[in-house]
Amino acid sequence: MYTLFYSPNACSLASHIALAESGLPYEVRRVNFAENEQRSPEYLKHNPNGRVPALVTEKGTLIESPAILAFIAQSAPDAKVAPLDDPFEFARMQGFNSFIASSLHVAYAHNKRGYRWADGQEALDAMKRKVVPNMRMYFGMVENDFLTGPWVLGEAYSVADPYLFTMADWLEGLGIDREEFPKVADHYRRMMERPAVQKALSVERPD
Amino acid sequence: MYTLFYSPNACSLASHIALAESGLPYEVRRVNFAENEQRSPEYLKHNPNGRVPALVTEKGTLIESPAILAFIAQSAPDAKVAPLDDPFEFARMQGFNSFIASSLHVAYAHNKRGYRWADGQEALDAMKRKVVPNMRMYFGMVENDFLTGPWVLGEAYSVADPYLFTMADWLEGLGIDREEFPKVADHYRRMMERPAVQKALSVERPD
Repeated sequence: MYTLFYSPNACSLASHIALAESGLPYEVRRVNFAENEQRSPEYLKHNPNGRVPALVTEKGTLIESPAILAFIAQSAPDAKVAPLDDPFEFARMQGFNSFIASSLHVAYAHNKRGYRWADGQEALDAMKRKVVPNMRMYFGMVENDFLTGPWVLGEAYSVADPYLFTMADWLEGLGIDREEFPKVADHYRRMMERPAVQKALSVERPD
Repeated sequence: MYTLFYSPNACSLASHIALAESGLPYEVRRVNFAENEQRSPEYLKHNPNGRVPALVTEKGTLIESPAILAFIAQSAPDAKVAPLDDPFEFARMQGFNSFIASSLHVAYAHNKRGYRWADGQEALDAMKRKVVPNMRMYFGMVENDFLTGPWVLGEAYSVADPYLFTMADWLEGLGIDREEFPKVADHYRRMMERPAVQKALSVERPD
């Protein structure tokens, strides 16, 4: 049994969807960000960096979306959610997921979590102002350079897809129309048709 | 033959060391940051995100340190620089590398590359002021939570080690004494004794 620590609509949604696709036995446990539970001593034992997702396994706890996504894929080879037998394609998937984690998601985090990198309202406001142009820049790269289509890697669905879906889901909250990026919007719609996505969303957005 | 695009002393040093450890045939090509070559149309074909490292293979180009490091390990199984047969340990390695890429390295980048996330001198100065405390915080996590010792994963050397070495190498330039983090400092010294590290450094720092 795997236990995924998540916060609704955070980047942990990608791992949640991947678990639902995988066929692995799992449960999810909500981390209450409103009560700052991610900084509680109990949670920091799982992830000293105070972030979701964290995946508790019988061998210990794993952190970071790209690592957890690849672990789920390797632990459920029959689900075929990663190119496990092709190191180049696997690295292409990991490269995309790492780009999301270290560039795209980081750009987004400057909207509400700018305090990580600077103190003072002026700096926080300056960071907020750059979030929308940065997200447009990065989604432009996804649209034109990274999203092979129909799935991220091409014909084969992989755990890069729920990660992209999770990021594309955030655009609306920033006032960016997904249709600015037609391939991304099409990808989002096809993701929404997948039972695993519907299952994860029914838990994270119950009403 | 693999071709690694690098900039001296950038995070690409980790992939450079890993290639030197691997026994794979490779060459390195310097990207001239002083002339902004990483934003040139030629280089953007390799990495649309305009960053090093990029690794050109016969199948195409790979980007992002965590993906390239894992690819090198998978392409050179005899070098034993990753726990390839244990998905949990492999994910632990990838989780550490992703933590570096998306938290530690990002914190460092706010020193000289704050323009990525905000415009205006005041905001850039505010970001600079938080770099040293953030790096101390993250190296505290590495010291106390992530660095099993003697290597990142424990007894087994892996491609997480050159990545940590590369980050630890940056501390001096920030005026942080590595000895504040005794396990990190010890790790750094043992890395410096490895022929592959010396070989990569002799290319990146020829004098």
